[in-house]
Amino acid sequence: MKKWLSPFLLIAFFVLSAAAHFAGWDPIIQFILAAISVIFVAGFLGKATENVAHYAGQRLGGFLNATFGNAAELIIAIFLVKEGLFDMVKASLTGSIIGNLLLVLGLSIFAGGTKFKVQSFNVSLAGMNGSLMIVAIIALFVPAVFLNTHSITTSDTQTLSLIVAGILIVAYIAWLIFSMFTHKKYLADVTEDSEEELPHEHTPDWSKGKSILYLVLATVMVAFVSEWLVDTLETFTTRFGLSELFVGAFLVAIIGNAAEHSAAVMLAMKNKIGASVEIAVGSSLQIALFVTPVLVFASYFYGNTMNLVFSTIELLAIGVSVFIAKSIIQDGKTNWYEGLLLLVVYVILGVSFFMV
Amino acid sequence: MKKWLSPFLLIAFFVLSAAAHFAGWDPIIQFILAAISVIFVAGFLGKATENVAHYAGQRLGGFLNATFGNAAELIIAIFLVKEGLFDMVKASLTGSIIGNLLLVLGLSIFAGGTKFKVQSFNVSLAGMNGSLMIVAIIALFVPAVFLNTHSITTSDTQTLSLIVAGILIVAYIAWLIFSMFTHKKYLADVTEDSEEELPHEHTPDWSKGKSILYLVLATVMVAFVSEWLVDTLETFTTRFGLSELFVGAFLVAIIGNAAEHSAAVMLAMKNKIGASVEIAVGSSLQIALFVTPVLVFASYFYGNTMNLVFSTIELLAIGVSVFIAKSIIQDGKTNWYEGLLLLVVYVILGVSFFMV
Amino acid sequence: MKKWLSPFLLIAFFVLSAAAHFAGWDPIIQFILAAISVIFVAGFLGKATENVAHYAGQRLGGFLNATFGNAAELIIAIFLVKEGLFDMVKASLTGSIIGNLLLVLGLSIFAGGTKFKVQSFNVSLAGMNGSLMIVAIIALFVPAVFLNTHSITTSDTQTLSLIVAGILIVAYIAWLIFSMFTHKKYLADVTEDSEEELPHEHTPDWSKGKSILYLVLATVMVAFVSEWLVDTLETFTTRFGLSELFVGAFLVAIIGNAAEHSAAVMLAMKNKIGASVEIAVGSSLQIALFVTPVLVFASYFYGNTMNLVFSTIELLAIGVSVFIAKSIIQDGKTNWYEGLLLLVVYVILGVSFFMV
Repeated sequence: MKKWLSPFLLIAFFVLSAAAHFAGWDPIIQFILAAISVIFVAGFLGKATENVAHYAGQRLGGFLNATFGNAAELIIAIFLVKEGLFDMVKASLTGSIIGNLLLVLGLSIFAGGTKFKVQSFNVSLAGMNGSLMIVAIIALFVPAVFLNTHSITTSDTQTLSLIVAGILIVAYIAWLIFSMFTHKKYLADVTEDSEEELPHEHTPDWSKGKSILYLVLATVMVAFVSEWLVDTLETFTTRFGLSELFVGAFLVAIIGNAAEHSAAVMLAMKNKIGASVEIAVGSSLQIALFVTPVLVFASYFYGNTMNLVFSTIELLAIGVSVFIAKSIIQDGKTNWYEGLLLLVVYVILGVSFFMV
Repeated sequence: MKKWLSPFLLIAFFVLSAAAHFAGWDPIIQFILAAISVIFVAGFLGKATENVAHYAGQRLGGFLNATFGNAAELIIAIFLVKEGLFDMVKASLTGSIIGNLLLVLGLSIFAGGTKFKVQSFNVSLAGMNGSLMIVAIIALFVPAVFLNTHSITTSDTQTLSLIVAGILIVAYIAWLIFSMFTHKKYLADVTEDSEEELPHEHTPDWSKGKSILYLVLATVMVAFVSEWLVDTLETFTTRFGLSELFVGAFLVAIIGNAAEHSAAVMLAMKNKIGASVEIAVGSSLQIALFVTPVLVFASYFYGNTMNLVFSTIELLAIGVSVFIAKSIIQDGKTNWYEGLLLLVVYVILGVSFFMV
Repeated sequence: MKKWLSPFLLIAFFVLSAAAHFAGWDPIIQFILAAISVIFVAGFLGKATENVAHYAGQRLGGFLNATFGNAAELIIAIFLVKEGLFDMVKASLTGSIIGNLLLVLGLSIFAGGTKFKVQSFNVSLAGMNGSLMIVAIIALFVPAVFLNTHSITTSDTQTLSLIVAGILIVAYIAWLIFSMFTHKKYLADVTEDSEEELPHEHTPDWSKGKSILYLVLATVMVAFVSEWLVDTLETFTTRFGLSELFVGAFLVAIIGNAAEHSAAVMLAMKNKIGASVEIAVGSSLQIALFVTPVLVFASYFYGNTMNLVFSTIELLAIGVSVFIAKSIIQDGKTNWYEGLLLLVVYVILGVSFFMV
């Protein structure tokens, strides 16, 4: 499968876009090369994920994919935090959360829905994901509302942010324990079981060890190419008069999530919608419950604590994304129109952010 | 059934209230005649809908009913838009959405619940309706929040309104394709199937062609009588000191939805709660996703674009209505107490609007 | 069971803390004695509830427990209303609602989840509870939003509060009719039925009459001890510089709900999670739909009407509690992680209130 994913082109475009970046070619050239390269490395990552998922089961595979996908974002964000660019960090975290919940999930459900009338996944997992998403937005809304209605000192705001960040990290670790150990079977994909009784139509491309190695390698490549691509965006912001909020929340997030996009959509089209949901929702949960709190602590160690207070429209965007995504996944069934609805909300938010 | 629905009285009161309207009799007389006439034409419309539903199945029947019910509202609203009375248009759209979700749905579920312990309908349809309702409120909330938190020019607000309106119309057309074509069976009423195996206890009153003709005729009559009745309301606003918001959002909406009321309640009492939900929820969705956007475009062609920014209390009213209606329909089962809860919320909103 | 619940110690500490209160011993001594006494009387109440539940079935038992638990709160609140301390009343009502929905329910689900992988209860009851919670927050949000966006006179605000309070009491009485009479079986606990077919492993400790007598007696004792404990809190507020909001919404509520805590957690650990949910959610619903409206009317008779307008952060706290609790109970299944999530939200709110 995927004959176009030639190792030669993959490496060629990676090297070319590296050269363009480090030699400082014209930004437009840099952008084009990096964009093409992203397609290849994302495809490579998708293939590696699929192979690992074959050995690890859909859910662990999905978790690994979400983690490797977010590793890139975390690294980029830490550099931004170090330089004190908190607004851009929050914009890109917002963009990553809504990009996963609306664009990645929407495209996956829509694409899967064009091939299969109704796709199903574990309804208990859907319910748990919904509750976790709600906890995530509560953790972001509560400090913001307290700050806007009461005169709280900057120092108190930072203390509150650190405490809430700590609570979220504990909650996230407990979630890993719950989903990987105590209730692994309870959340298992419904399609996974039935699939294992089928004759193995898809033999994996690589051995277990090679699959894991390629997964790590592909993630690293995605991280680099994403950063090179992001680097060229400032030129676009200036040349085309786009707002930083729009660039951070939409362009950066779309490109930064290229890996999740391709993997999730591909799995959905193979009727493994459970793994797609795990990638998309799992990735956004990881950003809200783990990446964001880690950045708060990282900023604390760099000497200037980033608070957890997002702007009103960022909270609005995250809130409505959670609201519609929860409504759509909660019955454990999806169809093409539900994917379309997620994309509709994404476009409405995108147009609104563009207007600001 | 419905022996009181004599064709003679129906026509007599229609002609009388027409005479009262065009001859300009005393507004109180006009009001009384139009109110009595509404009862008859709504009854007629209900009977026609029932007959059409017999031939078309519950869902298509419900859709037809919602459409014919809203045709009247759309026509009235376009006249208001033409005259630039945007606030009144928004108040009556708000009233129509909450009137359908709370009053029509509440009365139907309550009335049906007094005869049947638990009534069921297709749970997939309930879920889709819930998600559509959420998209509708997102489309109304997002522009309002952006406008209130950022300095956006009037021109940008209108552009944003036109774009969002366009997106909503596309989403609505896609919903028709989904519900009428690609997933018709998936959303079919659960009771419909079992009912068709029963011996035909209720033979239709009219032939298929006659039923459709009467449905159109009844809708037109309802449209006329509603308008005559609405015309008399200004007198009440002035004489009894009611606010325009209350009159627009409650009195106009209740009378304008008379057709949906009678049809939906009647179907619920025959245990066709699926059709009632389709009328009530379908009608409110049609207003939010189709009638409202069409009015935005209509205003554009009349030279003065109406924006999509509803007032805070209108958004509050729509938001809480969607919230409670979604909670009540989402399990695909209803009982009398759930109907009562919808009515409770309607009364709380009504009293609050009355106070303003 | 519960060998530590010696009648001698129960009475001894009750008498001691009564002596400390009326003789005016040092507040710290009063606090320690009352706190120990609370543990014993709450244990006694829990045992009595369990016995009554054995005779009455889980749901009626849960309702009785919620009522007796709230009787104490209602009495204390009426004294506060009489003295016009409306802010403290609202803070403690808020604390009681969120304490039940997050702390009591969270501890029950978590404790039960450590013994049983998944606990189930009637999904129809879960759905009804969710809808009732939403109506409760709508009744609190709507007057607050109207007041904040429109200039409404104090007199109109009080009229609106009285009307909404009246509507809520009607809704609550209708709920009792629904849940106790017309749909008793529909809401029956799933585990209750299966349990009744088991050989009676747990014989009740007392006769039916004695159980009821002890339930009343234990409730009265809890009411007294709670009040004595609350009395000592002012000292803590002053000495340790805590805000009244935090003391009212957290300390008072935690102690005032001691009875519900112990009973609900104990039932959950015996796999009667349905009764735990009934106590926790039922208790919070009773406060929102019955205790609060009754206090509005009580204040009216004392000559100074308390309005229904809660502060923004009180509404936020109630809103997020309902949102997460509804998400967690709506599938009628619970596990330890869901209990943890409720506790996480409780801690986030607690830390935030502490900071104000």
